[in-house]
Amino acid sequence: MQVTISIDIGGTSTKFAIVDEMYRVIDKNTLDTKFYSNELDYIEALFVIIEGLLNRCSSFERVAGIGIGAPSCQPQKGTINGAANLPFSGKVEIVKLLEERFNLPVFLIKDGNAAALGEGALGAAKGMNNYVMLTLGTGLGCGIVVNQKIVAGNNGQAGEWGHSTFEKNGRSCNCGRKGCLETYISATGIKRTIFQLLADSNLDSPLRAISFNDLTSKDIFKAAQKGDALAVQAFEYTGTILGQKLAELTALFEPEAIVLAGGLAEAGTVLLRPTLEAMKKNMLDVYKIKVLSSSLKTNEAALIGAASLVWHNLKLEALCQSL
Amino acid sequence: MQVTISIDIGGTSTKFAIVDEMYRVIDKNTLDTKFYSNELDYIEALFVIIEGLLNRCSSFERVAGIGIGAPSCQPQKGTINGAANLPFSGKVEIVKLLEERFNLPVFLIKDGNAAALGEGALGAAKGMNNYVMLTLGTGLGCGIVVNQKIVAGNNGQAGEWGHSTFEKNGRSCNCGRKGCLETYISATGIKRTIFQLLADSNLDSPLRAISFNDLTSKDIFKAAQKGDALAVQAFEYTGTILGQKLAELTALFEPEAIVLAGGLAEAGTVLLRPTLEAMKKNMLDVYKIKVLSSSLKTNEAALIGAASLVWHNLKLEALCQSL
Repeated sequence: MQVTISIDIGGTSTKFAIVDEMYRVIDKNTLDTKFYSNELDYIEALFVIIEGLLNRCSSFERVAGIGIGAPSCQPQKGTINGAANLPFSGKVEIVKLLEERFNLPVFLIKDGNAAALGEGALGAAKGMNNYVMLTLGTGLGCGIVVNQKIVAGNNGQAGEWGHSTFEKNGRSCNCGRKGCLETYISATGIKRTIFQLLADSNLDSPLRAISFNDLTSKDIFKAAQKGDALAVQAFEYTGTILGQKLAELTALFEPEAIVLAGGLAEAGTVLLRPTLEAMKKNMLDVYKIKVLSSSLKTNEAALIGAASLVWHNLKLEALCQSL
Repeated sequence: MQVTISIDIGGTSTKFAIVDEMYRVIDKNTLDTKFYSNELDYIEALFVIIEGLLNRCSSFERVAGIGIGAPSCQPQKGTINGAANLPFSGKVEIVKLLEERFNLPVFLIKDGNAAALGEGALGAAKGMNNYVMLTLGTGLGCGIVVNQKIVAGNNGQAGEWGHSTFEKNGRSCNCGRKGCLETYISATGIKRTIFQLLADSNLDSPLRAISFNDLTSKDIFKAAQKGDALAVQAFEYTGTILGQKLAELTALFEPEAIVLAGGLAEAGTVLLRPTLEAMKKNMLDVYKIKVLSSSLKTNEAALIGAASLVWHNLKLEALCQSL
């Protein structure tokens, strides 16, 4: 049986999986990305985990290739370069380095696009021709599928919607600009919103006991579930922006569905209610768009998408050789 | 020789052309859309002009079909329905009505998409795989081409970017909502900006002598050329918004080029300078996107696009019949 090694590089953690041809996750591992301020140390750590996974493949499993989803990468050059959401800032020739080390074909795609491929292969968007996938994690990942194909862009740089300006002179972003969309609608964004509300309001809240570094979007969700007014207000604020921007995506693409994934999306109704309200309010009446939650296990979309990238590219290569 | 009748329906005027297979415009006519508050009167007027054009076709010219670009239409249903930028508000079964009257195949597409097809067939985007075309006229038309295909949307409703919210509780739009992008970046939008500036400032300006109904974006352009401070300020304001939004389009699609057309785009540098500045400021450094002016004659893009729609669909039909 053939399998792939799938890697989903995120700002907080890097996830690894062995995925088979039926997109079943056979084995997994994780690495804390945020501890690596030096790219060489990070690559060494990647090597160790990949080696461990390769050793755990049974003799029945042949590894066909490695698929990687990563933020701010240049897929055509095989590099991760000056990534806004990674702790290291140097350029990493990740495809070349992994190919040399493991003598396997390595394919790279933007993280948001990997998640979109995964959702189309096995998740909520299975069988759809036109859909958009948003990953509300540390940053805002975005993958757009039109006529069953990823909108990759002229140089593989499409899908960086998180770094478009939402608020002029707004919140500082890791990319060096201000007011980027992902500083509002992401797990980090809602955390910043909570701290804004803690500053502006004098309401009591259990969230006043948690430091910025310790607070997670899950804490905010739990507080909202218990009726904490500030937490509910933060979800209202975030959902209202998200809904307005989903209406804009709809006006541009009219997808069949928009699929939400990532830490923030897991909040469910408390986020979705204000989102759908704002979406309806900001959209022409002609549109009927499904807003779905990722149906894949937490954070598996990008891993499955990275696997589908490997199969897709190997088939393409075989096809080209046969011509 | 085969020709098409091409129709470009706009809020101010409706343009007609006889276009040959080489996309040469052989004959033209125009109708003032804005005088028709009743859709039946408008259709009767369309009939008269089309009949006139058919009579002017020589015996060597066989009319292959009629192509129509229209705002807020439903291409799959063949209707124009509740169009925000048309003076009449009823539903018009335009495809059915024209087919019955003229016994010719009739094809309908959104106005922004027609312009994009035209620019790709013969204009500034000729030979490009990925581009976006914006028409800054009465409204804001938007046509997106990815992998050489129009992004039509799940029900032919993509490309309504003009009706996405730019400013919460902003300017009232014909669609019934507030703050739509086209109330800022369009020929009508800059007119509204001028009247805002005339209200806010006490600077003298020749534009103070012109009524809202009489003012055109060309008047504003001419005043800016002569150094009128308010007119220049209106172009700065409009260009800054346009540039920010072009940066957002880039983050989503990374097109090879963005092509600008329509009355407002004809202003050239006075609009483009602030646009490009704002675009650069709001965009990741990885992007290198061309911003081009339509290379087709004024307002011919949608007419040529409507012709290319006819040829494309007739070829598709022939292909389907041969299978």
